[in-house]
Amino acid sequence: MRTLHVVIPAGGAGTRLWPLSRVGRPKYLLPVGGSASLLTQAIERVAPLAADVTVVTSAQTAPLVEAEVADLPGEVAVLAEPAPKNSMPAIGWVAALVEARFGRDALVGSFAADHAITDVAAFRRVLADACAAAETGRIVTIGITPTHAATGYGYIRVGAPLPDAPAAAVAAFTEKPDAEDAAAYLASGKYLWNAGMFLSRCGVLLDALAETHPALAAHLRALAAAPAEDAADVLTATWPKLEAIAIDHAVAEPQAERGRMAVVAAGDIGWSDVGDYDALAERTPGGVVGPVRALPLDAPDSLVAAGPDNAGEVVVIDGIPDAVVVRSGRLTYVTTRSRAGHVADARALALDTLGDGWA
Amino acid sequence: MRTLHVVIPAGGAGTRLWPLSRVGRPKYLLPVGGSASLLTQAIERVAPLAADVTVVTSAQTAPLVEAEVADLPGEVAVLAEPAPKNSMPAIGWVAALVEARFGRDALVGSFAADHAITDVAAFRRVLADACAAAETGRIVTIGITPTHAATGYGYIRVGAPLPDAPAAAVAAFTEKPDAEDAAAYLASGKYLWNAGMFLSRCGVLLDALAETHPALAAHLRALAAAPAEDAADVLTATWPKLEAIAIDHAVAEPQAERGRMAVVAAGDIGWSDVGDYDALAERTPGGVVGPVRALPLDAPDSLVAAGPDNAGEVVVIDGIPDAVVVRSGRLTYVTTRSRAGHVADARALALDTLGDGWA
Repeated sequence: MRTLHVVIPAGGAGTRLWPLSRVGRPKYLLPVGGSASLLTQAIERVAPLAADVTVVTSAQTAPLVEAEVADLPGEVAVLAEPAPKNSMPAIGWVAALVEARFGRDALVGSFAADHAITDVAAFRRVLADACAAAETGRIVTIGITPTHAATGYGYIRVGAPLPDAPAAAVAAFTEKPDAEDAAAYLASGKYLWNAGMFLSRCGVLLDALAETHPALAAHLRALAAAPAEDAADVLTATWPKLEAIAIDHAVAEPQAERGRMAVVAAGDIGWSDVGDYDALAERTPGGVVGPVRALPLDAPDSLVAAGPDNAGEVVVIDGIPDAVVVRSGRLTYVTTRSRAGHVADARALALDTLGDGWA
Repeated sequence: MRTLHVVIPAGGAGTRLWPLSRVGRPKYLLPVGGSASLLTQAIERVAPLAADVTVVTSAQTAPLVEAEVADLPGEVAVLAEPAPKNSMPAIGWVAALVEARFGRDALVGSFAADHAITDVAAFRRVLADACAAAETGRIVTIGITPTHAATGYGYIRVGAPLPDAPAAAVAAFTEKPDAEDAAAYLASGKYLWNAGMFLSRCGVLLDALAETHPALAAHLRALAAAPAEDAADVLTATWPKLEAIAIDHAVAEPQAERGRMAVVAAGDIGWSDVGDYDALAERTPGGVVGPVRALPLDAPDSLVAAGPDNAGEVVVIDGIPDAVVVRSGRLTYVTTRSRAGHVADARALALDTLGDGWA
């Protein structure tokens, strides 16, 4: 049953994978764990349940995204935002378009463009449960069952099971914890990672938004109501007025406080946000990302990555375990997996020294 | 007094600096410790004493060498060997040409193309002493005063001081020692490193060669005696007949056994054979070789090197002390200075996997 209208906000560059992901060459276009990009994987994961897929991205990256999705089966549209406004306007825009076209009960689901999931079949079963829960009129998130005491993710505190859906109430969303709290969360068994997946009837989502951010909800519905011949002008006129805000703050947290959010636990689906080079290496059997050859010599668990400009290159790593070597145009970045968290420093040094063209 | 006819055999590629030095892009063309290549530094070091300089290289690299020396002051000639024959034929060819043109008493001096010396003024004083010693009719080598118990060099055991020259007799040349012997050599104070520098009257050198390798000496003198219009044909016909042998084995060791070799100790001139990436890093304040920028972040004592094909590139090293990152065309080689001795393994792996085009 392809009843889900999928929206994939694809706005960020993914600076923690700099310089492999760069401005104009975002992380979600990287091939990870296979030959397909993270974006294509995200679309293919939801395909059996998706009536259509809409990717919302910047005008700059829209051509790249259009090329990436051109050969995918099914209905995949690309919308270009006039300016970045965080996730709520992107998701709400598509929700409003779905509402205008299919009515307020149609299901919308929002999924990250740049995450990876190993067990796609298990994910699809969870997704079906989440759709069922959303059809009860709730806003539903899919929470990732933690595998370690991560401090880099927001958490979802799980409440009581729902009587009428394969889901539980969300007791609360919490910010990224410190190490002590993260360990306590993990030990309690009551917390899930927030992976930014939200499903609901489109009318429910927009009504919920209207409770706390009425102007934003009204603008989005006005955008969707514009006649086709005026749509571009209305977009240009309306977009600057939109509040830039994440769906978490605009809807999920306020609705959780009102007891109206539900959560489905994903269980062991092998989720990763591929958030840094260590995570990328973890997801890359063989240790090579992109059109490059690696020759490791006494360099176990190393990662070699290259962008499309560097096709056909060869990287020899000699005697550095856990090495990370990235080739990106005229830039070479060499580090180790244990330093994955320091990419921001390296990027800042490069930009300070070389200029923003290297961002 | 520019009385020395200098010959610089420039045959080897320098595989211990692969892939920075490659077939067709030899080590002696690398800029080390400044903007000038090792070859240019070698020529400029001897310039105040040199009547002329002849670089003997392969036909393949001759155009690169000619371009490199084109703008140097003084008389610098480039000779192309039809095939590599080790150092004796190259040096002997020039010695024979000097003998034919300037007579048998003219001084010839042979110097490596790819070594570095920090204290050029001190070297020139030593060179003047070596010339004076060679004018007594001996074959003279300049020995490097050891700074550590190196196992990678041949040694010269110093004999009694000479009565008539600022030099000593060579008691013996020895092969590369093991660590124990090297330590004993260093402690004794009686050994110098053999840096492949030899000076003598050209007639003395060729007569000495004729004692042990009469055919080779005769061929070389015949080459030099050929009329200009026949020189190319004679070279083509004669070169394949020449024995491939190093000057050390052909002349220096046999003459030392006969008590006819002299040595001048160089003292503290800051000599290095720049034999591997650790030595190259040692000679490279700032840690950059070639037309590349390095941005080290918590990467002290690292070395970044690039060939001319990689001009304008940037290498960021994050958190790897003593790292060595080499960009050479489509190849990136990443290692550490402590692994400098393993380059041969990495090169062999690359050639086995990728083919000889990467040599």
